[in-house]
Amino acid sequence: MTSPEREYVRSHLDDLHADLDAWLRIPSISADPALAPEVARSAEWLAEALRRIGFPTVEIWPTPGAPAVYAEWPSADPGAPVALVYGHHDVQPVDPLELWVHPPFEPTVVEGADGPELHARGAIDDKGNVAMHLLGMRAHLAATGRDTPAVTVKLLIEGEEESGSPHFADLLRERRDRLDCDVVVVSDTGMAAPHLPSAVTSMRGLADAEITLRGPAVDLHSGSFGGAVPNPLHALAELLASLHDDKGRVTLPGFYDKVRPLSDRERELMSRVPFDEAEWLAGPAAGSVAAGEAGFSTLERLGARPTGEVNGIWGGYQGPGHKTIIPAEAHAKLTFRLVADQRPEDVAEQVKAWVEANLPEGVEAEVHAPPGGVAPCASDLDSPWMAALLTAIAQAWDGAPDDVLFLKEGGSGPEADLVEQLGAPLVFLGAGLPTDRIHSPNERVLLSMLHRGAEAVAHLWRELAGVRRG
Amino acid sequence: MTSPEREYVRSHLDDLHADLDAWLRIPSISADPALAPEVARSAEWLAEALRRIGFPTVEIWPTPGAPAVYAEWPSADPGAPVALVYGHHDVQPVDPLELWVHPPFEPTVVEGADGPELHARGAIDDKGNVAMHLLGMRAHLAATGRDTPAVTVKLLIEGEEESGSPHFADLLRERRDRLDCDVVVVSDTGMAAPHLPSAVTSMRGLADAEITLRGPAVDLHSGSFGGAVPNPLHALAELLASLHDDKGRVTLPGFYDKVRPLSDRERELMSRVPFDEAEWLAGPAAGSVAAGEAGFSTLERLGARPTGEVNGIWGGYQGPGHKTIIPAEAHAKLTFRLVADQRPEDVAEQVKAWVEANLPEGVEAEVHAPPGGVAPCASDLDSPWMAALLTAIAQAWDGAPDDVLFLKEGGSGPEADLVEQLGAPLVFLGAGLPTDRIHSPNERVLLSMLHRGAEAVAHLWRELAGVRRG
Repeated sequence: MTSPEREYVRSHLDDLHADLDAWLRIPSISADPALAPEVARSAEWLAEALRRIGFPTVEIWPTPGAPAVYAEWPSADPGAPVALVYGHHDVQPVDPLELWVHPPFEPTVVEGADGPELHARGAIDDKGNVAMHLLGMRAHLAATGRDTPAVTVKLLIEGEEESGSPHFADLLRERRDRLDCDVVVVSDTGMAAPHLPSAVTSMRGLADAEITLRGPAVDLHSGSFGGAVPNPLHALAELLASLHDDKGRVTLPGFYDKVRPLSDRERELMSRVPFDEAEWLAGPAAGSVAAGEAGFSTLERLGARPTGEVNGIWGGYQGPGHKTIIPAEAHAKLTFRLVADQRPEDVAEQVKAWVEANLPEGVEAEVHAPPGGVAPCASDLDSPWMAALLTAIAQAWDGAPDDVLFLKEGGSGPEADLVEQLGAPLVFLGAGLPTDRIHSPNERVLLSMLHRGAEAVAHLWRELAGVRRG
Repeated sequence: MTSPEREYVRSHLDDLHADLDAWLRIPSISADPALAPEVARSAEWLAEALRRIGFPTVEIWPTPGAPAVYAEWPSADPGAPVALVYGHHDVQPVDPLELWVHPPFEPTVVEGADGPELHARGAIDDKGNVAMHLLGMRAHLAATGRDTPAVTVKLLIEGEEESGSPHFADLLRERRDRLDCDVVVVSDTGMAAPHLPSAVTSMRGLADAEITLRGPAVDLHSGSFGGAVPNPLHALAELLASLHDDKGRVTLPGFYDKVRPLSDRERELMSRVPFDEAEWLAGPAAGSVAAGEAGFSTLERLGARPTGEVNGIWGGYQGPGHKTIIPAEAHAKLTFRLVADQRPEDVAEQVKAWVEANLPEGVEAEVHAPPGGVAPCASDLDSPWMAALLTAIAQAWDGAPDDVLFLKEGGSGPEADLVEQLGAPLVFLGAGLPTDRIHSPNERVLLSMLHRGAEAVAHLWRELAGVRRG
């Protein structure tokens, strides 16, 4: 179904491709301190691009780490809603480099089963998703014949997302007065498949804890002490084995108290998402099997249920051969994925109580559960902002709003900070695909997804203008 | 109770002290490749000392590692039994060096609560124990007025005991024709207290295994996979938590099948050994509590019962902060202390069966259980060799043979190779004390223990001559 927005996008694809080609050549890996100048150059490039298409206010916001880019284009319409776009301009590291078919910072178009693909680090995560907004804004203005957008558009594109956004919450606090908005549009996610337009509706939160168990004051000789004093490694194994019950449920006291039960409607919506479990298991999980909390599907386990995972353990001797010791210490790192309405700060307390309750005599524990963590966040499925998003996506993907699938994202990100500090609802518009190999060699974006994404941006600014401000 | 042996020892203590002073200045740390020349020099020193006191045959036996010293002094008496002394001339590393009050290779006499002590690395383990044999042999010859000892005495003093005796079994095989003997005298152990003459009667064996569990093909993102596929760290925790039952017994199938039950007489003999559990726990185990197999005392757990210990674990992320992964692999190193008549090769099979039986779906295991291991060994309490040993110890320590305590050594060593390959019974004559800080900074020997030990050697060669050869 064509539209002025689509006409404009389709006749200006070369601009989108040229922009991305230039931007993707900048290796803005935020995790590599040696590349800090490149991350700065990436911010400069984006700022210049935003100025070029007409944003009247474009600023580079320094942080103690990498800089963010902020831009603002007020609508001339009094009372127009304010939308704030979140994305990031830094990218993941590229190792193992030898697995890349094309150099990661030399964008290359490859013909694939679903049409042309652009291969490069950041092609979709997140430069592709952000670049959609450059052409999308131009299409919106051209299609509606306006000088200013129908809604006030703010962009906040950070430079440290791939490093865990360590300064993002502080940045939001410091710049709070500039960031007032009615809705946050997160452009850092994706859809279920090229022909299955979809919208993420929630992300899980995250809490982490490090546990140290201490037994004897020093490593003991197992010939002189073995079998007669507690071994902290045994205590750790028993503790961690008790983290889940036989139904796969996390045993921290009170862990599920604030979990919003999945409604029948949510389960029905989730069940519509096509998911080939065998194919999923054959991917990076190769050799694994589906396993988890009893009574829930894999998609529900991944997106809608909280988890506890041990991410690392260590203690005692790890070198060649054997060393007959009872080690003085044992260690474990755990993270918990949270869903609405769990609070990361509650989990820290729950971990401490659980460890205390499961400690054998003669072993002491230290639990380091850093404050903060990431809160879970979720869109309101029935809000007018969501209705506007669904209309925009449906138009760009040639479907009906009711056919747009709802996805629950299992990961966690700084989006929760936006909700907490800006107090605005979130909607997600991203053009990625599960097969895009983000964070892996040969990251790609399907160009047709980018084109539709740019069109959806143009529709979205028009649709959001009709929403009455809360 | 004086004797010609004691008279001789007491009037030649300066020789013993001078010998030890010279030998202890050689830093023969076998674990440090840079000190290989010093280990060789230590062997040369010992060979020269043995020649000096009259051993007609003294040889240095090279190995692919450090050299052993072999000496032989045949008795002129036809039909005299043959005794083979085992000890070692290498020593433990000295770090942390800053904790030594006196430099470890500058032997220093210090006045202690129980009389003069000699402080140096190797003071008792094992140069002190071996040096007793130099003066002891001279005292035996002088006291009995003989030109040759009453029994044929062979010494085999290896240079790699503190590195796990990696070439000792091969050495025994290669030199088997030289090593025929009727009894092995191990001089590498100790007694319960200065005034509690005692004899070790058994040592535990050792089997080791390394377990690798594999789940997904690569580390997975816990946001994308967490809660929906098996985590090898969870599987490892459950596996290791199942290594012991709620009675503290090892759960490997068949693990206890060949364990000789403790007889009432053995338990009675063990209970005579004074043991202050609170003091023991206040030592290196500081902060620990007694814990282990139900139904056995701490001394029984340490010396007379088999154990399973996890010595090391690792897997996943161990760096600062957190990393939200489900790791591809998890690892553990285990050792098992064995008692008669367990066989290390059985344990390897038992570990494999146990792992297989406790593996969740989606996790694969690899068990590396090296062949070999160390068999447990035990003296026959009722043999005439043991009677001779008890008489010799009793005389040197001014007691009665029936008062000599029996100790069960919880550790494991190459002694089992001697039993297996030479087919001779073992007795233990050593002058160490639990408070001698072997393997730790400020290792010492109580000089009075060394003096009595040298005297006991002299008595032993006389007593053994009366034993009819099997």
